[in-house]
Amino acid sequence: MTGPLEKHLEKLKEIAGPRGWSDDPEVLAPHLVEWRDLYKGRTPLLLLPDSTDKVAQLVRYCHDNGLPLVPQGGNTGLVGGGIPDESGNEVLISLKRLNKVRLRDPLNQTITVEAGVILNELQAIAEEMDLYFPLSLASEGSCQIGGNISSNAGGVGVLKYGNTRDLVLGLEVVLPDGQIWDGLTGLRKDNTGYDLKQLFIGAEGTLGIITAATLKLYPRPLNRQTALLAIPSPQAAIELLTLARKMSGDLVTAFEIIPRIGLDFLIKHMDATDPMKAAYDWYILMECSSSLDRNHLDMESLFQQILETAMEQELVPDGVIASNEQQRDSLWSLRENLSEVQKFEGGSIKHDIAVPVSKIPQFLDRACTAVQKAIPGIRPVPFGHIGDGNIHFNLTQPEGADKAAYLARWEEINKIVHDIVQELGGSISAEHGIGRLKVEELTRYKSPLALDLMRKLKRTLDPANIMNPGRIVK
Amino acid sequence: MTGPLEKHLEKLKEIAGPRGWSDDPEVLAPHLVEWRDLYKGRTPLLLLPDSTDKVAQLVRYCHDNGLPLVPQGGNTGLVGGGIPDESGNEVLISLKRLNKVRLRDPLNQTITVEAGVILNELQAIAEEMDLYFPLSLASEGSCQIGGNISSNAGGVGVLKYGNTRDLVLGLEVVLPDGQIWDGLTGLRKDNTGYDLKQLFIGAEGTLGIITAATLKLYPRPLNRQTALLAIPSPQAAIELLTLARKMSGDLVTAFEIIPRIGLDFLIKHMDATDPMKAAYDWYILMECSSSLDRNHLDMESLFQQILETAMEQELVPDGVIASNEQQRDSLWSLRENLSEVQKFEGGSIKHDIAVPVSKIPQFLDRACTAVQKAIPGIRPVPFGHIGDGNIHFNLTQPEGADKAAYLARWEEINKIVHDIVQELGGSISAEHGIGRLKVEELTRYKSPLALDLMRKLKRTLDPANIMNPGRIVK
Repeated sequence: MTGPLEKHLEKLKEIAGPRGWSDDPEVLAPHLVEWRDLYKGRTPLLLLPDSTDKVAQLVRYCHDNGLPLVPQGGNTGLVGGGIPDESGNEVLISLKRLNKVRLRDPLNQTITVEAGVILNELQAIAEEMDLYFPLSLASEGSCQIGGNISSNAGGVGVLKYGNTRDLVLGLEVVLPDGQIWDGLTGLRKDNTGYDLKQLFIGAEGTLGIITAATLKLYPRPLNRQTALLAIPSPQAAIELLTLARKMSGDLVTAFEIIPRIGLDFLIKHMDATDPMKAAYDWYILMECSSSLDRNHLDMESLFQQILETAMEQELVPDGVIASNEQQRDSLWSLRENLSEVQKFEGGSIKHDIAVPVSKIPQFLDRACTAVQKAIPGIRPVPFGHIGDGNIHFNLTQPEGADKAAYLARWEEINKIVHDIVQELGGSISAEHGIGRLKVEELTRYKSPLALDLMRKLKRTLDPANIMNPGRIVK
Repeated sequence: MTGPLEKHLEKLKEIAGPRGWSDDPEVLAPHLVEWRDLYKGRTPLLLLPDSTDKVAQLVRYCHDNGLPLVPQGGNTGLVGGGIPDESGNEVLISLKRLNKVRLRDPLNQTITVEAGVILNELQAIAEEMDLYFPLSLASEGSCQIGGNISSNAGGVGVLKYGNTRDLVLGLEVVLPDGQIWDGLTGLRKDNTGYDLKQLFIGAEGTLGIITAATLKLYPRPLNRQTALLAIPSPQAAIELLTLARKMSGDLVTAFEIIPRIGLDFLIKHMDATDPMKAAYDWYILMECSSSLDRNHLDMESLFQQILETAMEQELVPDGVIASNEQQRDSLWSLRENLSEVQKFEGGSIKHDIAVPVSKIPQFLDRACTAVQKAIPGIRPVPFGHIGDGNIHFNLTQPEGADKAAYLARWEEINKIVHDIVQELGGSISAEHGIGRLKVEELTRYKSPLALDLMRKLKRTLDPANIMNPGRIVK
């Protein structure tokens, strides 16, 4: 049934209807390149449906004619999962016009929205309801909730609220044959057979197109303390985490690690000020928050006591507590600029790994030693969500090295790092997914049995292999 | 390949090894009847493997010879999911000897245990680690964690900690062909393809046998307040829940509804004392708890303020706060004896339904009216986890009615109630599962598409249909 896409374009435009498609190169351009520039795609047609029925009709036509289809949210991905390949044979379908709020249900503490709603708009709607949607990540101004769900997005609230998967109660999905599965419930308990929605969360659009979701909301956080703390070692970091979770009554909402070299880069290239008098090897950005107000919880003194105890136990030699919002923002900006600032120092080979929290020290020790052996002078800048066991293990090139020659060793270094991750029972993609970037690597690190199960699921749900083909599993 | 079980018994015994099986009727007896007496089964052989490898060998033999296999945990289920049928052709495999703790990992806040570990032992081990495993339910003294996961158990901690699904980080599963899938990770973030463990959670042993799990642990609750509150209506209950969640900073950990008639039964048959001077139509058992200690959170005054505000808003006319553990126990015993006490009043037709929390008032109103129309004099005793939208909608027979004649109308009444649940977007099995009891009903209330997806999953993972066949989907 597969044929050239050309002869189907008019029919697809007709189904999509006026405003429901574009073939204007200027309109298409921003949909065809990822912001990290690793992937650039081509397509003759961008579909822009504004209803689930329209999505279903378009998918059915593609299914019946064997046309591969790539669903796209806000195009903020990093692994080539949301743009068409270079062949020009894949149809691109954007969910951005499917952006209605279907139901605000404050007494159920849920909201039902369509896939194209932008994350920060969703956060704002929750706030209007005097509630809180906890998913938060760097791209929240442009990423869409459908994409967040399809990639099981992580972000900065995972420690307390879990990944996106944990925030989803129900889904509506257009299946690869064009049927609409209505699993859009707001139930917190439902044991009527297999939990089908789990299939589509984190499946990166390979098993169907998520068109709407019912999501959990929470009471708003009202009370917050933030500090940057020097720590002697990663081992001290995880002991501090355990202490802080216990003493705070599980109110630690962010726990991010920053290495000295990262701080040096920020001081050198972004005019950051060294926050403490002495220099330390490692820092933790720690935040506690609660939806209890200040009249009931003196978070300031609680936070102080946690830090005092940590100092007594020699887990924290020094620290800075933010005393106002401005100071908080400036502490967070250290963390947020860590990725960006590495560009000034040349090439960076990146990893998004996770291991059990208890194995972070061992991972850092082994991985730093191994990459320094492979490339003497290499500069590890490991940072990120240590509280979730998730480190962005970025490696800046040796000073004065040739950038291209350094980056040419990307896969070799990945293998060294990921082999250690594997030995420690970890993940080679903690929050960014597989897309096209890590399809080959996945075959190295997943067991043949796990890959076989994944392929069977793919074949069962998408026997025609039209839905985002070649992503995750081939 | 399917043949009579007889000729395979010796071979299965040989694989199972000494102590690894029993055909002694006295040993088998407690494994062949559910405690609610709805199901009684037969089998010539109980398998008692004590290692995952042994489970795998046994399953492989059954697979290769087309022998149906029923996995069993603590046999505390209610829907016929864990005992063999009456044919005598199903082999029973108990996981109770697979009961080792594999890994305590306090710095990762996880524990890895085998399927046969009993829930209250698991709770105790977590406590030894100065941590907390929040799953808690009436049968915790005998249910096993493998069964809890296979049935996605609910219980009394769902409001804060979620269902069992939310507590699982990793699984080890023997697949229906005898292969072992090792998904036993302790990772809080892992986006490397489809989340395979989700398939097996809540699948009631139809897609494989869970042999071990890595589970999340939490800081221990240290600070608790409990009250029984009169409320004028179910609508007031859900408004009170919203108020209490907000004012407490989301520390409401239990929120259970009790109807006046339930209290009357308790007073009449179990010598309970009416806790308030006046009689009210409805009561809420509310508990807030925190792992913050009393020095940092004055839960008593916070709780008082919540109740005062609720009284000002006319949500709560009267209430009793437990001032010590004994009083707390006696308030909880009202809730816990509600199911038992109904036996004294004759037959009870039961439902385990969920709707969105916001639709509870509408459900109760419509369902009570409908069943009273069908059977004048019927006495609804709706109680339970209203905070999760989950009501045990039990219906006591009219006074003086014939019990058998009343119970003969079970299915007719189920249909009336479940049709209303369906119209409100609810679930006909909130926490008890499908098993054999609700297989037919499921075909009425799930969409054909959802059933088709479930059957496809079953066929994909268990093409020989040997793993707990006929449960959930046929």
